[in-house]
Amino acid sequence: MSSSYLFINDRFLPVAEGHLHVSDLAIQRGYGLFDYLKVVEGVPMYINDHLDRLFYSAQQMHLPLAKSRQELIAIILQLIQRNNLPLSGVRITLTGGLSPDGYSIATPNLVISQSPLQLPSGETFERGIRLMSYPHQRQLPGVKTTDYLMAIWLQPVVKKQGADDLLYYNTDSVTECPRANIFIVKDRKLITPAQNILKGVIRKHLLQLASGILPVEERDISLQELRTAEEVFITSTTKQVLPVRQVDDTVLFKEAPGHISAQLLHLLQQQQAAQRKEAATA
Amino acid sequence: MSSSYLFINDRFLPVAEGHLHVSDLAIQRGYGLFDYLKVVEGVPMYINDHLDRLFYSAQQMHLPLAKSRQELIAIILQLIQRNNLPLSGVRITLTGGLSPDGYSIATPNLVISQSPLQLPSGETFERGIRLMSYPHQRQLPGVKTTDYLMAIWLQPVVKKQGADDLLYYNTDSVTECPRANIFIVKDRKLITPAQNILKGVIRKHLLQLASGILPVEERDISLQELRTAEEVFITSTTKQVLPVRQVDDTVLFKEAPGHISAQLLHLLQQQQAAQRKEAATA
Repeated sequence: MSSSYLFINDRFLPVAEGHLHVSDLAIQRGYGLFDYLKVVEGVPMYINDHLDRLFYSAQQMHLPLAKSRQELIAIILQLIQRNNLPLSGVRITLTGGLSPDGYSIATPNLVISQSPLQLPSGETFERGIRLMSYPHQRQLPGVKTTDYLMAIWLQPVVKKQGADDLLYYNTDSVTECPRANIFIVKDRKLITPAQNILKGVIRKHLLQLASGILPVEERDISLQELRTAEEVFITSTTKQVLPVRQVDDTVLFKEAPGHISAQLLHLLQQQQAAQRKEAATA
Repeated sequence: MSSSYLFINDRFLPVAEGHLHVSDLAIQRGYGLFDYLKVVEGVPMYINDHLDRLFYSAQQMHLPLAKSRQELIAIILQLIQRNNLPLSGVRITLTGGLSPDGYSIATPNLVISQSPLQLPSGETFERGIRLMSYPHQRQLPGVKTTDYLMAIWLQPVVKKQGADDLLYYNTDSVTECPRANIFIVKDRKLITPAQNILKGVIRKHLLQLASGILPVEERDISLQELRTAEEVFITSTTKQVLPVRQVDDTVLFKEAPGHISAQLLHLLQQQQAAQRKEAATA
């Protein structure tokens, strides 16, 4: 099952007609930003958090958004209805626009598209993932830019190492994965980096949920501290809570992932179920 | 006078029809590379140097080029003939392609486009440009990627400071401008950075030409050394040799730019005139 429609600037189009001109700064100079939200049974999850971040990214990147929050919500809801997918992601992209000189910011192009999505299975959760650490600091880390140059470029190395994804570190502090935040449990405290990262929407809600069950710290984490943690997991819109079994050559668990990871995933799922229920009765 | 045609993958198209699908990795993840060459009266300048670098960039970025060198030259010559511009730039772009999962490299899209070009006037040369230094290291510096995130993002600051462009430095060593290489003349030696830069085609030929008239060094240059240099200039395909009058608050010349800058520009112009003459009689 795939998506039939997308939205560009002012209209809905069949997906096959979703084009941008090659003079767009996104193509010419890699200048663009986006946000990405999950849609479950027609309900967009945490939509206000994602739109908050979208507006923040747009302002930081000097790219004016021609639509208001209410207009964006209306377009997203209409797109969801038209495509009618059971579980999907909606991506809102804002590009640098059709630059006359190929260097100056022009009128941005707004693209809203939707794709089917699969969440990690219970089996994937139990198995956990393997990360490969790599020294890299994303440019403008607090902004959700389209800059994934290093992540894509390193994919052949990641695959060769048998890893599932990268874990970036800056000098000695781990920061984030290319598309996810990282957490550790140490001495029964939940710890996650606070700076040089993109602040994920799931990260935010997980911190709130976790603070009810254990102490929470936002601070730098060294690679060494991570390697000796009791539990390590990543969070993202598509991954939810996903345990890390191995970082480089360090095996973090052999049998099953930790109880806190499982408990936090459960709390998150409960929160999202409540959000769907609320939307259904609204 | 503007360009009428461009080339995408396997065919020439009117410029207005030059589109890529929004699922291209260049738009989704900023993954792409290019090269850019100057065309004077129908003759592409230093075309083999540019194609050497294009093939190098493509190999480094794991993006296969579907055309051979001879095929690319034939397409470029045909495009030049169709558009019939007196002075122009040809841009060859290779994108990450239409990725099914929005993350893995797919079959690249090849775009060859042409735009009218103006070289700096004699007046611009005499006046020189003003640079604003900024601490930044480009990702994959030896590869001509489409990543100009920092350069575009900083444009409002550059304009506010009254500068013309940026001068990146890495810790204390200057590296390059976003679209040009930097040179200094000090104690009658010509010096240019050797590492963490994109090696420009004009840089290469200028070093060869200069070695006939003064000693040449490729090595790190500190910001302090640059500020006390006798002459400072940038080189690029579109800028040729362009003197730097000021870096931040340091004025490098008040009256006219240095003699060596002028002499090197003259040698470069002679070389390009010879190249055109050779092409005309070939």
